[in-house]
Amino acid sequence: MEKLFVIKIGGNVVDDPVALRKFLANFSSMNAKKILVHGGGKIATKIGEQLGIQPQYINGRRITDATTIDLVTMVYGGLINKKIVASLQSLDCNAIGLTGADANIIPAAKRPVKEVDYGFVGDIDSKQLTMGNLQLFLENGLSPVLAPLTHDGHGQMLNTNADTIAAHVAVELSGTYEVRLIYCFEKKGVLSDIEDEGSVISLITKDSYRKLLDQQKLADGILPKMENAFAAIDNGVQEVLIGHAEDLLRNVGENTIGTLIRHQD
Amino acid sequence: MEKLFVIKIGGNVVDDPVALRKFLANFSSMNAKKILVHGGGKIATKIGEQLGIQPQYINGRRITDATTIDLVTMVYGGLINKKIVASLQSLDCNAIGLTGADANIIPAAKRPVKEVDYGFVGDIDSKQLTMGNLQLFLENGLSPVLAPLTHDGHGQMLNTNADTIAAHVAVELSGTYEVRLIYCFEKKGVLSDIEDEGSVISLITKDSYRKLLDQQKLADGILPKMENAFAAIDNGVQEVLIGHAEDLLRNVGENTIGTLIRHQD
Repeated sequence: MEKLFVIKIGGNVVDDPVALRKFLANFSSMNAKKILVHGGGKIATKIGEQLGIQPQYINGRRITDATTIDLVTMVYGGLINKKIVASLQSLDCNAIGLTGADANIIPAAKRPVKEVDYGFVGDIDSKQLTMGNLQLFLENGLSPVLAPLTHDGHGQMLNTNADTIAAHVAVELSGTYEVRLIYCFEKKGVLSDIEDEGSVISLITKDSYRKLLDQQKLADGILPKMENAFAAIDNGVQEVLIGHAEDLLRNVGENTIGTLIRHQD
Repeated sequence: MEKLFVIKIGGNVVDDPVALRKFLANFSSMNAKKILVHGGGKIATKIGEQLGIQPQYINGRRITDATTIDLVTMVYGGLINKKIVASLQSLDCNAIGLTGADANIIPAAKRPVKEVDYGFVGDIDSKQLTMGNLQLFLENGLSPVLAPLTHDGHGQMLNTNADTIAAHVAVELSGTYEVRLIYCFEKKGVLSDIEDEGSVISLITKDSYRKLLDQQKLADGILPKMENAFAAIDNGVQEVLIGHAEDLLRNVGENTIGTLIRHQD
């Protein structure tokens, strides 16, 4: 199977024009099929404040009310997505910016209200996903750039976490391509000693992960990412890599310098 | 050749949720290849005011400065475009929202500064246009929804008039499809008596247009639209129709109720 890279960048890259430009140059230079998924960054909050939209939180989680979904549709789907696409075009990468509504690539359902009403947040149901259009774009030389937005099929845009979108897309396309899912991270990789940037663990398998958990070596913050990574692996993704955005070109090759997560050695 | 409809809607539809919903339902029900081009509407100005962006005008023409191009990229390319796409998806029309940067469908050049610096406004050079990707989407069951935005190939988004985008796309695709370009208008069609809504001229050819001009029957406001229409006809578009958005379904058929503009009877 042909190789496909699904690469997710978050706020630390999106919010930093120099880091973003460098990342996009590296992304463009990759001679392989590739999908970029970007998070939102702080600009939506900043523009929201200027528009008098106060962020709402419940238990530390941001609530997406009606004004906020319009705000993030503008900022994530318009401003950030199109700036990235225009930059990639200038670097000879034929990018196409998409939300989950475009070509119906990522239908979702509004999260059911239980203890908390998260508002216009979309949960992806993998049974509903069909990757035919993303594959059509990839096979015709286009590099999709996905904003962290989905839709409910009834005309409503929804806010969906970029890590989750990247994982679902990677899983669904792993039937067609040999997929490496790359999470760009603020560190070089998963550290065995949080105080030591040089302590990147180069390979984690299920067995070694269990040992790391037993030894309580991993920082709490990395655990959800690890759970996502193993969920992707268990559903067909060949390998997941957690590494720094600036190391992209090393991390798409054979000798990675981030943390590679695989079923086995 | 197969028929293709290129349909442009402006602010009077985009700004009116009821009219927009009705138009999109009609657009969705068209069992034909189709492209929708939308203008901006007043929402960008309103959001701009909330953000403290003062519209700049020179000789009555809006100037697109650096803050304004970011504003319209957000509002046209994000908010308006994705709301239209999500609505169309709910109506079983597989829409894909695009700016000119996406898949490089409409490269443009920043308008040269002569007497006036219009700022980040893009002029389309038809020699640079290649419609391969729009055709790819059409042939795979997708209906492109184009925002009035282009890009300069050097990473900068540009503001481009929606009428102009519709005309260029219609002309370029007229080599592949039999194209009817439809400009949705606030009136039923071109009127021979501006005071009488019932005086729609059902057909205008080059000969009859000359006579109408000689008789000074046409309102000044319609003349630029007529010039655009004949330019499209002269460059390969089969027919141009000027009519009201609410008459769409009649105006895509044989017995149109707007004004059809053709080379000959």
